[in-house]
Amino acid sequence: MTHRKLPDFLPDWMSAYKRNLFSGDLIAGLIVTVMLIPQSLAYAMLAGLPPEMGLYASILPIIAYALLGSSMTLATGPVAVVSLMTASALAPLAQQGSVQYVELATQMALISGVMLLVFGLLRLGFLAHLLSHPVISGFISGSAILISIGQLKHLLGIQVSGNNIISTLIDLARHLPQTNLATLLIGSSCLLFLWWSRRYLSTFLEKAGVSSKLAGMLSKLAPMISVIGFTSIVYLFQLDERYGISIAGHVPQGLPTLSLNLPGLDAISALWLPALLVSLVGFVESVSVAQSLALKRKQRIKPNRELIGLGAANIASAFSGGYPVTGGFARSVVNFSAGANTPLAGIISALLMAVVIAFFTKLFYFLPQAVLAATIISAVTALIDWHSLKTAWQYDRADAFSLLTTLLGVVLLGVEAGILLGIALSLAVLVWRSSRPHMAVLGRVPNTEHYRNVQRHEVQTVPGLVALRVDESLFFANAAVVEQKVMGLVNADPDVKNVLLVCSAVNQIDATALEMLDQLEKSLSTRDIQLYFAEIKGPIMDRLKNTPLGKRMKSKIFLSVHAAFLHLKKDQELH
Amino acid sequence: MTHRKLPDFLPDWMSAYKRNLFSGDLIAGLIVTVMLIPQSLAYAMLAGLPPEMGLYASILPIIAYALLGSSMTLATGPVAVVSLMTASALAPLAQQGSVQYVELATQMALISGVMLLVFGLLRLGFLAHLLSHPVISGFISGSAILISIGQLKHLLGIQVSGNNIISTLIDLARHLPQTNLATLLIGSSCLLFLWWSRRYLSTFLEKAGVSSKLAGMLSKLAPMISVIGFTSIVYLFQLDERYGISIAGHVPQGLPTLSLNLPGLDAISALWLPALLVSLVGFVESVSVAQSLALKRKQRIKPNRELIGLGAANIASAFSGGYPVTGGFARSVVNFSAGANTPLAGIISALLMAVVIAFFTKLFYFLPQAVLAATIISAVTALIDWHSLKTAWQYDRADAFSLLTTLLGVVLLGVEAGILLGIALSLAVLVWRSSRPHMAVLGRVPNTEHYRNVQRHEVQTVPGLVALRVDESLFFANAAVVEQKVMGLVNADPDVKNVLLVCSAVNQIDATALEMLDQLEKSLSTRDIQLYFAEIKGPIMDRLKNTPLGKRMKSKIFLSVHAAFLHLKKDQELH
Repeated sequence: MTHRKLPDFLPDWMSAYKRNLFSGDLIAGLIVTVMLIPQSLAYAMLAGLPPEMGLYASILPIIAYALLGSSMTLATGPVAVVSLMTASALAPLAQQGSVQYVELATQMALISGVMLLVFGLLRLGFLAHLLSHPVISGFISGSAILISIGQLKHLLGIQVSGNNIISTLIDLARHLPQTNLATLLIGSSCLLFLWWSRRYLSTFLEKAGVSSKLAGMLSKLAPMISVIGFTSIVYLFQLDERYGISIAGHVPQGLPTLSLNLPGLDAISALWLPALLVSLVGFVESVSVAQSLALKRKQRIKPNRELIGLGAANIASAFSGGYPVTGGFARSVVNFSAGANTPLAGIISALLMAVVIAFFTKLFYFLPQAVLAATIISAVTALIDWHSLKTAWQYDRADAFSLLTTLLGVVLLGVEAGILLGIALSLAVLVWRSSRPHMAVLGRVPNTEHYRNVQRHEVQTVPGLVALRVDESLFFANAAVVEQKVMGLVNADPDVKNVLLVCSAVNQIDATALEMLDQLEKSLSTRDIQLYFAEIKGPIMDRLKNTPLGKRMKSKIFLSVHAAFLHLKKDQELH
Repeated sequence: MTHRKLPDFLPDWMSAYKRNLFSGDLIAGLIVTVMLIPQSLAYAMLAGLPPEMGLYASILPIIAYALLGSSMTLATGPVAVVSLMTASALAPLAQQGSVQYVELATQMALISGVMLLVFGLLRLGFLAHLLSHPVISGFISGSAILISIGQLKHLLGIQVSGNNIISTLIDLARHLPQTNLATLLIGSSCLLFLWWSRRYLSTFLEKAGVSSKLAGMLSKLAPMISVIGFTSIVYLFQLDERYGISIAGHVPQGLPTLSLNLPGLDAISALWLPALLVSLVGFVESVSVAQSLALKRKQRIKPNRELIGLGAANIASAFSGGYPVTGGFARSVVNFSAGANTPLAGIISALLMAVVIAFFTKLFYFLPQAVLAATIISAVTALIDWHSLKTAWQYDRADAFSLLTTLLGVVLLGVEAGILLGIALSLAVLVWRSSRPHMAVLGRVPNTEHYRNVQRHEVQTVPGLVALRVDESLFFANAAVVEQKVMGLVNADPDVKNVLLVCSAVNQIDATALEMLDQLEKSLSTRDIQLYFAEIKGPIMDRLKNTPLGKRMKSKIFLSVHAAFLHLKKDQELH
């Protein structure tokens, strides 16, 4: 051990830091910064906030996450979906551009940060699973469509109002004749350049002899190149004055001042639900990218640590004049592939951002808004995921339905209603699926100890015995269905004297199902029909044996279907 | 076939009606009517409505359900919990006693009826399973406590205001010195008589030589006896004038006029959520009692038909000046035990109620409100269910927690918030449970074809092979956990070359889990580790084989764990 002993309160990665990790972290930090500058300006615009707030949200939050989060390669900061959700939450509460709007954005980061922190301390990381992949995919695609449509006005250089997609589109069509052609030219060439770079720049560079890895990294610089290029063009040809192109204008220089603007009760009651949704969506997005990157390097993500890390990042954002942040998909992937080994890469890019804010914001004065809009559109359209829809459609219509409904919900009703719809759908599909379990009546495959579905196989049955296998855990969503199935089988055949419930695929029995079984046993017993169990799993048996039902049925529980059949057949012969 | 051929549009029970069923239906109809008269007056009071509305809600709704519902013995009409929910939904919208309040109650029945009907036509009967038994039990017990506390003012003869439990209790304590002693005397003697009857009247009558069945039925007449007795006492001794005892007063005589008061957009937007909750709660309560009664007689309940029947009942209630109705627990049980064979029993009691309303409402003039309050308290305290709490506590803490939280939620936050909390809890517990599946690494029990948990049994393993059995369906709530488990096992042992996923307890694989498996296979494969499956169930295999993953893994899926072990062991030896 040659490295110096560091204090215990430092994160593991820091106390175990080795010098050979540094070059990877440095390069990744540099490249992510170059991506982060245009993105943070653009996403702040998307959130309806002044550009410097995007920059502020890219310093302390990253450092806070680096110290407390569990991912080695997650790049936090402003992201598109969370920015859109912020804009949508604040729209009914304050006017964009007002002091109150800015204050509310900061307070939303604080509320969301505190929620995430508390969830982490309560170990509620499993809440991320409230959203299924189809719902996440539908949500992201829907948000991307909504965001892209919202940015069209900047590409066209027109003013558009409208608080939902329909009125926005109508207003857009009405103002179309007022399109600023110079703006449109800059915006569309930027968009074309970004699209071209995303698809072909890397191949192009490789053909020109650049190594494959370097080419991949250089192609990520396209947004920064277009920022520099188009800003220079506007500056050199004075396009802002001559053609009325909208530019970023004065971006305040200097590090953010640290202060905390505590929300009042009014703000809390208006912001808690949007903050909760932003927290949930941000957490899910962040954990899924962190996890997929960690798996590639044999690392592990701790969901509860992630909650704490993201919570701290949002609180740090609120302290330093930022707005809600989370882990971003694109930047994290770039960070990973650029060779980031530890969160030091993030700290490096946070420090670089601080330098930019402290000294270089003047350079953004002539940055055209159309370029930021093109950056946003290019980034979010990459997130639209038709592949998942196709796969879900082929594999499982219920999942495809969830995906499409969430997508349409987001586009037509807005992000908040969309995500709530998505959560409700995930759970409804889960309950719906479990409420109709696969059940099979079993018979013996001749001369074996195997028992199979009587409808699929040639099997032997014992007269007066019905053996039913339920291929699902027994719980509130399907207890009634199983009860009805058993009673239906019993009613269909007046000779039935024994019912055997085969529990080989029953992984859990909840209190509702236990009560059902208790009632079932009693009501069968009043009709002189005996209930038996077979193949109950260990963990269930441990709990069952202490219940009144378990005690009553003690001698009626068999280890295997075969043992039950042998016993009940003998029983039958005695009658 | 001697019975006359009846038109096809009549319900099955009517076209197949046999004369020998009639005496049971007649007696049950009579007894239920005698219970229904005091209950319908009392529950209307509980809903904050004039007494005649309870009577109106006991004619057409019962007939509508009889024609369209699927239960043979469910007794519909006003019930306690739905009345409480109506009062709580209308409290913020209109003043009790105002015309608007009455109109809104009728419109709520209409909206709820239309919702139920639409749900039935969409076949959404499975929605009833959104509520687990512990949540239903907590909800009912909480409502019973809330209702009882709300009725104390009538027992004490004082005026109390307060829109939540705390302020009601404080106001109650403040006004306690103003207690009307005559009212308290009547109310408490009535309550004592009802409690005594419920516990001992039946035994008492049996000892006096009455047959057990008749004694049981007669004991159900106690509320009617106390109504007649105390009304007579008040009338004879003029207690209303002499001691200021509150009485029912003038109850309009005559059948309700048929009319439909369509809600405006304002009313719809204020009432849709309470109407949805009332529909859901009413449906769940109704279906569970209908089902438990049907099972005793080898009959079946069709949840979607129930939705249609209850929907029609509520629409009929709205047409005839009533308020939301559903199937009641106590009356249905009495209807069943009194020998009701078909819904004709309900039609008989509806006709009897019509006669009461048309000619005899004068008789209720001197009925003391304290007696109605005692009727309510006696009925709802019978619903408080400590037994379920005890059972849930012993069997499953998560379920006990749901029960208690829902109970406290109803008492402290009100019925609507309570039921929403309950639904959220049911689903959260479901997701939480499924998000931490039981998983076991398997080895071979020496010299057998059985494979068991390496931690519980002495088993043989194959070097370089990890066999993991997951005891849960794979879906969005646990996909990430399973992936992490596999990666954890692989990371823990650098020699692992083969991973076998044993799916004997996997009943479903949703799109989220499929994507996880696809990713897992790819990321293992980049590390030269092969993924295999064993014991995939038929229905899953059918869908899996058409997916890219299924095609890639075609030769890596084994029918049994044993086959997989044999193959992979051989494979191992060749290395």
